Amino acid sequence: MSPRPLPFDPIVRAAELWTARIGPSTTMAAVTSIMRVQQILQSAVDGALKAHGLTFARYEALVLLVFSRRGSLPMRVMGERLQLHPTSVTNIVDRLEADGLVKRTPHPTDRRTTLAEITDPGRDRMAAATEAVTGIEFGLRGLTDRQTAALTDLLAKVRKAAGDFTD
Amino acid sequence: MSPRPLPFDPIVRAAELWTARIGPSTTMAAVTSIMRVQQILQSAVDGALKAHGLTFARYEALVLLVFSRRGSLPMRVMGERLQLHPTSVTNIVDRLEADGLVKRTPHPTDRRTTLAEITDPGRDRMAAATEAVTGIEFGLRGLTDRQTAALTDLLAKVRKAAGDFTD
Repeated sequence: MSPRPLPFDPIVRAAELWTARIGPSTTMAAVTSIMRVQQILQSAVDGALKAHGLTFARYEALVLLVFSRRGSLPMRVMGERLQLHPTSVTNIVDRLEADGLVKRTPHPTDRRTTLAEITDPGRDRMAAATEAVTGIEFGLRGLTDRQTAALTDLLAKVRKAAGDFTD
Repeated sequence: MSPRPLPFDPIVRAAELWTARIGPSTTMAAVTSIMRVQQILQSAVDGALKAHGLTFARYEALVLLVFSRRGSLPMRVMGERLQLHPTSVTNIVDRLEADGLVKRTPHPTDRRTTLAEITDPGRDRMAAATEAVTGIEFGLRGLTDRQTAALTDLLAKVRKAAGDFTD
């Protein structure tokens, strides 16, 4: 969003003022940093996926289905895995189905369950989109592999504390 | 969004499948983690700010103005500091002005520049909202202070590589 880089880190500056005026700024600085990096990644990934007619949310749904054993999952399970509200899953599957990338099928034994199933064009689109996002490293640059893994580990603690999973 | 925690970390599971089917998953896992943690924080912060009639974006704008030396900043500078598009700054200031929390004033010497200035009710609202968000630690839980600072440092490398700032 910046037309040119600021000559200082705006989050460090804000943290200094926060410490002087309000109190400890450690948490505020981390939260603001996550919000900003999410914007950077979302913008980079959406840019790379646009040419493939996908958003990150729709791409993640395709990946999940391609990775599933049968190439299909109950929509409820998709919501759990993607940590999305059922309404969001419905919207995502609607759009993917309209583009011919997934199709809804009845569950073979449970009439109340609808499956979303990946199609052959869906598999092709997922592969092409994967090349696009990995080609730009999902917009995540500036870290060594070890630092990237450390970042994931720290964020896992936050996700666990928020109740995403137990282990 | 999960009604109950999953019995496994869904990002670890996805990373294992990614490694088996596509290739190295270090970056994918970090990016997915950031996206998810941003959702957790956004939801927690918006929840805490709702009672104060604010979103995180509007709250950040109030903080910036309260921290400014004169209690006012050119809207262009607000956009630079908050790393927002000018249209977003306009929308945020419109809404804050409608609520009486800021007012637009002409720049004393530069006619082409409009300042946004914090009002007394704006200062009070910022103080109350700050108590609300710090009271829930902005939704960021599960980390020691040292780990929180390490997270900020890793994310600063990403922001710098994306061109947010030089130093």
